[in-house]
Amino acid sequence: MSQFSFIAELEKLKMVHRQNATLDGGRSENSAEHSWHLAMMVLILAEYSPQPIDTDKTIRLALIHDIVEVYAGDVFAFDEKARADAVERERVAAKQIAALLPQDQGQYYLDLWEEFEALETAEARFAKLVDSLQPLLNHSLTRPVDNNLHGLTRSQVGAKKQWIKDHVPEFAPLVDALIARSVERGLYHDR
Amino acid sequence: MSQFSFIAELEKLKMVHRQNATLDGGRSENSAEHSWHLAMMVLILAEYSPQPIDTDKTIRLALIHDIVEVYAGDVFAFDEKARADAVERERVAAKQIAALLPQDQGQYYLDLWEEFEALETAEARFAKLVDSLQPLLNHSLTRPVDNNLHGLTRSQVGAKKQWIKDHVPEFAPLVDALIARSVERGLYHDR
Repeated sequence: MSQFSFIAELEKLKMVHRQNATLDGGRSENSAEHSWHLAMMVLILAEYSPQPIDTDKTIRLALIHDIVEVYAGDVFAFDEKARADAVERERVAAKQIAALLPQDQGQYYLDLWEEFEALETAEARFAKLVDSLQPLLNHSLTRPVDNNLHGLTRSQVGAKKQWIKDHVPEFAPLVDALIARSVERGLYHDR
Repeated sequence: MSQFSFIAELEKLKMVHRQNATLDGGRSENSAEHSWHLAMMVLILAEYSPQPIDTDKTIRLALIHDIVEVYAGDVFAFDEKARADAVERERVAAKQIAALLPQDQGQYYLDLWEEFEALETAEARFAKLVDSLQPLLNHSLTRPVDNNLHGLTRSQVGAKKQWIKDHVPEFAPLVDALIARSVERGLYHDR
């Protein structure tokens, strides 16, 4: 049953560290539990999408969006150069992973991943939106005071997250409140 | 937006430890990343369900099945007494969690969770099946040799997992191979 080599490979996503922490500060958040959190956010928040979305399709996008990281690693959202470099590496990784599956399922996985990356469908945009929103929430909940590892500033974070507010105006007060709270706690410089 | 108190509470599932490890042996698997792994297994293995299933409904069951643990904790599958004691505690937890959501979503979450627990639908049975299968795979991949913390025996594990083989005969060779490999590695006693 060739699918089990794919399922075994997924274990590795539990070892891919992100620039977020857990509630006790004991370790980094990993991309597997992050993907679960996004899938749950989609399930609960789907009604806020400005275009109607297929919620289940969007959940599938959230579930698979980071699997490429088992070979390509996680790239910090604010590291623009590393992100640009990662694109080709991630596409190679996606193909390697797809090759573990029967051909039809491998192609389906690749199509889902390309859809997420292209951001051309309402589903991909909403999955990307929760992917961009979740770290703001995570920071405000899990980071110790004055933990500004990358010297982020309020305006830098605000610019990066502006599209969430543009895309779903109902989320604007939350985004502003989360950023303000993190500035207050010393996680982003107040400039 | 009341949904965000629910979404914030989900952070806690990343701190609920299971009796499984990660690939580097550095920590326990947690219930959030485990839930992600199950959702992916459902997506990839749905065709093997003996009754046709609604794959997306089954993914939703996998995503939410352990959320009660944010209040009720994880219970080891082989600890029958603790499992019996946990049932009422988990039901109370489910209601507490549902109360964080708008009423319709809270009720939907409770209905999904009750469906998973009751095992009366083909979707719930298949979600439960991958929940029972995943630890076998995890043990064989992640546990160091001779790590038999709970003194499990081959026949005990075999009896507990027999229903997977009965329910999906195509999985029987895999279940037997995983158990045999774990006995060989000293994770279960050979009796």
